[in-house]
Amino acid sequence: MTETPLTAVALSCTLKPSPSSSSSDLMAQQYLDALAEHDVSGSLVRVVDHDVRPGVERDMGDGDAWPTIRSQVVAAEVLVVVTPTWMGHMSSVAQRVLERLDAEISETREDGNPLMYGKVAVVGVVGNEDGAHKITADLYQALDDAGFTVPAQGGTYWNGEAMHTTDYDELEETPEATASALSAAAANAAHLARLLRDRPYPSGG
Amino acid sequence: MTETPLTAVALSCTLKPSPSSSSSDLMAQQYLDALAEHDVSGSLVRVVDHDVRPGVERDMGDGDAWPTIRSQVVAAEVLVVVTPTWMGHMSSVAQRVLERLDAEISETREDGNPLMYGKVAVVGVVGNEDGAHKITADLYQALDDAGFTVPAQGGTYWNGEAMHTTDYDELEETPEATASALSAAAANAAHLARLLRDRPYPSGG
Amino acid sequence: MTETPLTAVALSCTLKPSPSSSSSDLMAQQYLDALAEHDVSGSLVRVVDHDVRPGVERDMGDGDAWPTIRSQVVAAEVLVVVTPTWMGHMSSVAQRVLERLDAEISETREDGNPLMYGKVAVVGVVGNEDGAHKITADLYQALDDAGFTVPAQGGTYWNGEAMHTTDYDELEETPEATASALSAAAANAAHLARLLRDRPYPSGG
Amino acid sequence: MTETPLTAVALSCTLKPSPSSSSSDLMAQQYLDALAEHDVSGSLVRVVDHDVRPGVERDMGDGDAWPTIRSQVVAAEVLVVVTPTWMGHMSSVAQRVLERLDAEISETREDGNPLMYGKVAVVGVVGNEDGAHKITADLYQALDDAGFTVPAQGGTYWNGEAMHTTDYDELEETPEATASALSAAAANAAHLARLLRDRPYPSGG
Repeated sequence: MTETPLTAVALSCTLKPSPSSSSSDLMAQQYLDALAEHDVSGSLVRVVDHDVRPGVERDMGDGDAWPTIRSQVVAAEVLVVVTPTWMGHMSSVAQRVLERLDAEISETREDGNPLMYGKVAVVGVVGNEDGAHKITADLYQALDDAGFTVPAQGGTYWNGEAMHTTDYDELEETPEATASALSAAAANAAHLARLLRDRPYPSGG
Repeated sequence: MTETPLTAVALSCTLKPSPSSSSSDLMAQQYLDALAEHDVSGSLVRVVDHDVRPGVERDMGDGDAWPTIRSQVVAAEVLVVVTPTWMGHMSSVAQRVLERLDAEISETREDGNPLMYGKVAVVGVVGNEDGAHKITADLYQALDDAGFTVPAQGGTYWNGEAMHTTDYDELEETPEATASALSAAAANAAHLARLLRDRPYPSGG
Repeated sequence: MTETPLTAVALSCTLKPSPSSSSSDLMAQQYLDALAEHDVSGSLVRVVDHDVRPGVERDMGDGDAWPTIRSQVVAAEVLVVVTPTWMGHMSSVAQRVLERLDAEISETREDGNPLMYGKVAVVGVVGNEDGAHKITADLYQALDDAGFTVPAQGGTYWNGEAMHTTDYDELEETPEATASALSAAAANAAHLARLLRDRPYPSGG
Repeated sequence: MTETPLTAVALSCTLKPSPSSSSSDLMAQQYLDALAEHDVSGSLVRVVDHDVRPGVERDMGDGDAWPTIRSQVVAAEVLVVVTPTWMGHMSSVAQRVLERLDAEISETREDGNPLMYGKVAVVGVVGNEDGAHKITADLYQALDDAGFTVPAQGGTYWNGEAMHTTDYDELEETPEATASALSAAAANAAHLARLLRDRPYPSGG
């Protein structure tokens, strides 16, 4: 299989608007760097900087920023979602992204499949709180429902020891286990996205 | 124990701004009606109508609507949280409420306890999607972490058969099981809130 | 309120039969020690040492060990559940305990309430994997459904940095944050159990 | 791509030993029938009929039934996991399967990848209780961690209206939405398993 160029979009779901430093942005950028090694170019969107409205339609109108972000997702073959951990859950910004993707379940292409079919999603979770496995689970299920495919070991995460307060962007260097999992997830995502672009899922009903 | 008057605040976490009809509002009002039978008066806040900012401080400044809502929570003995189900998760509005309550974990009263100690929380989940047990779990854990106490059988929910689309506010009448669970949760919350007001938790460290 | 003697039972849900060392046993014993400071005496059950059968009845017959454990739960005012973290979830042994408690939801006392009403539950989670918030959530919801009350900040946990392999029972001493949360949960449980014994929830329907 | 023959194994995680009727068995068999339409032959294992020991090793010794089941998983390209819903969670039998698959994360092939890399997993959840989205999430995350790939819309489920008691195997016919989702999951699994057999993931480190 030739290394045909692909594109990715990484949604960083930090609660902090730019220009604050963000652990989620850091991990999202690390994902884009790792994907670039597999000839996947991409861009990073800090979602909270945009006025994504509450709702479950593709366009909530009236200045809603989602349609622009959504068009980047539609144009890409790989979606990266990175979220901080708050109260053990994904951020409200990440959940809002999922709510907006809910519209993709009901509206389908001419072949009967959701528009997101054939795209691949990977996830990252950062936190000074425990919660990464659960958030990974919640993201996989929602993204898979929306039509994305989840590659083997398609996530990475970092948090410190229980009830400590260090943040990912305060570490002197990225821990090896987190970096290694990120690297594998990116490699698998690129591989799977190419397979599914060349050989799409069968048409639905 | 005398039936001393207590107050409640019900946070409806629908994604739909007023004046749209809302299943979450309906269940929140049913909770307030049930609490009134136990001499607990209350008010309903549709959170999405207010500009609650992303963040984890008590006041994010610059027009943030949370401090006003928070003052109602602080003044009440019972907190009711009702959320719709999206992608199997609580709404982004509900998660934002939890994020804002995160500040209550780190800041404590003179006695060393969180300000929310002694308050009681009950929850309600509505959906045309499955997810109520999980959302109830996520809410109990986060509210309990923030200092609230969860009474026995402190929740109720409604959803239809798998993958159907009926909403709670479209039902001709509230199903008996949902109403009965709501009534028990309200009675237990009122009872427990009185106990804890008269006999507070021991002081912390 | 006098410090009337109460009893507790702590269910350790490790996968390892005796006499293996167990982090869950260690935390369960720490809970019992902390409860003893509040005049609550108790005993520890390592569930995997007993033949608890799969099923959702109070007695699955044929040598089922659950009825004996259940009688200890029924006799106690405080239930402690401690579980390890596997794949980000509570252990299969802990889930089996919940399945057996499912029978308590449908069968009620003469006053219409579940037999577990008025009892208080606290939880502990140990792991070399992240997952504690989610497991705490899953336990609170299931135990609350079964009739238990969850006191404010009714849990504690420990795990190490992301993807590390240290176990709780390998630590030289218990980390302060874990110990402090355990101590508060035990104090609140003892307080609430006394309140609810003296002033039971109202009768159900 | 030719329709090369593949094999599947379906693990039914009901709590009820044979010969009891089981909703999980029914859905597992429906999955196998749907896979057969895509030239994937398979067999069904009712896990509770076998003495799968608690633990996280590949073989817990002493009559442990897991090694035999594991060899079937290793020989197949597609894994189907179907579980009932108890207390809103997957069954203790399903969690035990995940615990036993935990061993696959640490032990890798000569190429550095887990043995399960390249295999595809789909899931099914049945219940007279709500919980399917959460259980699907928990299964996707754990199976993906163990090396399986999750195809787009890789699950199906059924439960009735909130707090009702009908079981899946009591329905006169399978609801259209559940059947349609199962059919799509099976088709996608077969497609993806063929792609990954012909074009394996890149080697790890």
